[in-house]
Amino acid sequence: MKTLGRSNQVHTQLRIDPGRLNQRIEAMACMGAGEAGVNRLALSDADKAGRDLAVAWMKELGLTVHIDGIGNLIGVRPGERDIAPLVIGSHLDTVHNAGRFDGSYGVLAGLELVQTLDDHAVRTQRPVAIVAFTNEEGVRFPTDMLGSRVFCGGLSLAEGRLVQGFDGTTVGQELDRIGYTGEYPSGGMKPFAYLELHVEQGPSLHAAGIPIGVVKTVTGISWQEITIRGRANHAGSTPMDVRRDAGLAAAGIITYLRELALAMGGSQRATCGMIAFQPNAVNVIPGQATLTVDLRNTDEAGLQEAERRLAAYLAASAEQWGVEIATRSLARVPAVHFQEGILGVLEAAAGELGLPHQRMDSGAGHDAQVLAGICPAGMIFVPSQDGVSHSPDEFTRPEDLEAGANLLLQAVLLLAGREGGF
Amino acid sequence: MKTLGRSNQVHTQLRIDPGRLNQRIEAMACMGAGEAGVNRLALSDADKAGRDLAVAWMKELGLTVHIDGIGNLIGVRPGERDIAPLVIGSHLDTVHNAGRFDGSYGVLAGLELVQTLDDHAVRTQRPVAIVAFTNEEGVRFPTDMLGSRVFCGGLSLAEGRLVQGFDGTTVGQELDRIGYTGEYPSGGMKPFAYLELHVEQGPSLHAAGIPIGVVKTVTGISWQEITIRGRANHAGSTPMDVRRDAGLAAAGIITYLRELALAMGGSQRATCGMIAFQPNAVNVIPGQATLTVDLRNTDEAGLQEAERRLAAYLAASAEQWGVEIATRSLARVPAVHFQEGILGVLEAAAGELGLPHQRMDSGAGHDAQVLAGICPAGMIFVPSQDGVSHSPDEFTRPEDLEAGANLLLQAVLLLAGREGGF
Repeated sequence: MKTLGRSNQVHTQLRIDPGRLNQRIEAMACMGAGEAGVNRLALSDADKAGRDLAVAWMKELGLTVHIDGIGNLIGVRPGERDIAPLVIGSHLDTVHNAGRFDGSYGVLAGLELVQTLDDHAVRTQRPVAIVAFTNEEGVRFPTDMLGSRVFCGGLSLAEGRLVQGFDGTTVGQELDRIGYTGEYPSGGMKPFAYLELHVEQGPSLHAAGIPIGVVKTVTGISWQEITIRGRANHAGSTPMDVRRDAGLAAAGIITYLRELALAMGGSQRATCGMIAFQPNAVNVIPGQATLTVDLRNTDEAGLQEAERRLAAYLAASAEQWGVEIATRSLARVPAVHFQEGILGVLEAAAGELGLPHQRMDSGAGHDAQVLAGICPAGMIFVPSQDGVSHSPDEFTRPEDLEAGANLLLQAVLLLAGREGGF
Repeated sequence: MKTLGRSNQVHTQLRIDPGRLNQRIEAMACMGAGEAGVNRLALSDADKAGRDLAVAWMKELGLTVHIDGIGNLIGVRPGERDIAPLVIGSHLDTVHNAGRFDGSYGVLAGLELVQTLDDHAVRTQRPVAIVAFTNEEGVRFPTDMLGSRVFCGGLSLAEGRLVQGFDGTTVGQELDRIGYTGEYPSGGMKPFAYLELHVEQGPSLHAAGIPIGVVKTVTGISWQEITIRGRANHAGSTPMDVRRDAGLAAAGIITYLRELALAMGGSQRATCGMIAFQPNAVNVIPGQATLTVDLRNTDEAGLQEAERRLAAYLAASAEQWGVEIATRSLARVPAVHFQEGILGVLEAAAGELGLPHQRMDSGAGHDAQVLAGICPAGMIFVPSQDGVSHSPDEFTRPEDLEAGANLLLQAVLLLAGREGGF
């Protein structure tokens, strides 16, 4: 058996098996599959099925499988030495009506590279751990990257279990229900470094025709729930000028979000993804409206400015429409800038493979930004066709999936041999 | 026993019992009562409970109770002669989180006036029928005034039973389930005239301090469901300028509705009462949005103009946001102008009682507008405090409820004695 260490020259010819990778992606996509895409919401029955499959594959590959208190799946391939592991991670949960690649690609490419190392009897100095983090998406339980937060100690296990879902359940209840409350200590693993491979979920790489993105910054995220209280009244007999229409105020906010993003420019994004009216009847002026706002900016000062402008708009809107507006923060993550050392390793590996690449920002949040708080972390992006994601139409070409996984493999070979820091 | 006919001089002193009326209103409000108001949606369990109570009261008053195929409750007090009855009607179904008066006031004032006639042993030439029409509100089954439409032959019983609810049930299934598919022939009753007593549900009478409104016109109503198809995509990684955001297009429509009503002026109203996003997740740009539009105008040409302007806006919006917009008519009723003969009777009766009154339009739809298609019909309004209705805060002062019921009684005394037309 070959051991990686002094020179990785002999391993630059190693390649993953693209067919095997694709088979795992397709099999995982069947967990929660329906006509409208994949629905594998965190801690749902479909998520349990996906977890069961991943655990079976990990065991088949001889990995030591740990499940921690928040349900993160951790499969460890031992190294030559019992030192801090190189962690490869992403997530298996999805949004509603999702595609096949968001999250699962990174986890399953990790399993594929383990199998490639095994096939070629390559051992690494460091252990390599493949991790599937719980509830990265946050659409059911509105704290995104929940598993990685608990893994990194930013959120206690007790707090994490208490997070309440939009359906009234809690993370703890659902973890217990699907049998994924594990014994492995949360925060029990201290990674040497963290790598995540992911589809871009935006149009940049596809538009530029470049197969690899080396992520330098992950956007900061601010999620709020806005509740507007007006007065329910009859849609026919209430004159327009005496209405206190919560739905009208909500519509103004949604329209303002776009104006805000365009006025801020740069990487600023602003989106309303959820809405509900009360009583929600065709002939009743909405007495209450609830909506969510998703603000993102790769610059923390910019994100704070967007939050300030929105708050000012809400105050003016409450005045204008005679409604009460309350806000509640659902999630708040500052932007994260990855260390130059990791960027250099990823660029060197891409150079070895002759893969065109560019540095770029991520407008999506990722577990990597949380891991960056406890170790050097980095991310590789591959193109999303037309930038579509969080949709059944999400698509990445097989050759791009293959290139990304081979780059991850090379980066692992470079990093899992290292002893020192960056 | 006194018989009404040549002279009603002796009966102008007759008065209803306000305490008894109020007791029935309070008892009916308990059917479907909750913390957030009354929920007695058409053909729900609560509606069944309200129907059972009304039928029990009708029988207690010695009325002959008929239930027709669409579930209308008809309680007949015989006249001296077997001629066309005077029909007093309204509805017992409510919107979500409703008040106590909308609909039930008119039906229960009918029962109270029957009891008052009985108490004073007054017989009328014509039979007097008290009718509670099925599904006036249309919030569960989106054809409002369904029962009166079938009663008047504008909609066949078969069509009425097939109307599908927002919850996927049909009217026929739910009528059968709650046991209110009756044997009495739909369209089997030809009224001499129709009277309906109702709370205004708007602010005019309360603001003017006038206790009685004599309705001259009931607004025309146009309900549409609008479905917008854009593209679901990631809220973080999708630049603002490539989005096809169905929610943003929906917000534009809601804002436009207000502009449309203000630009049209007059009696034009425009409201969005219902909305839903798909997939409705905090970090996903809505791929689909569905909303309802309620347009009303007491002038048919004005209502058609509003429909045209909205259609033009939707076409422009589809172009602007890169989305597809489809519309479906949920209900369409032209404005109805009541006959001068009935207005004169109501004004004469108000004069007898010394009640200040004004002619006015109704911005709400009512069963009376449907009945006007088959017989002379008229409506009496009493004030709604601050114009609030379709809300648990709906309120009418007891003295106004009493005045309205006494006016209805006097109008019945005038009309139930008549033999000829108007």
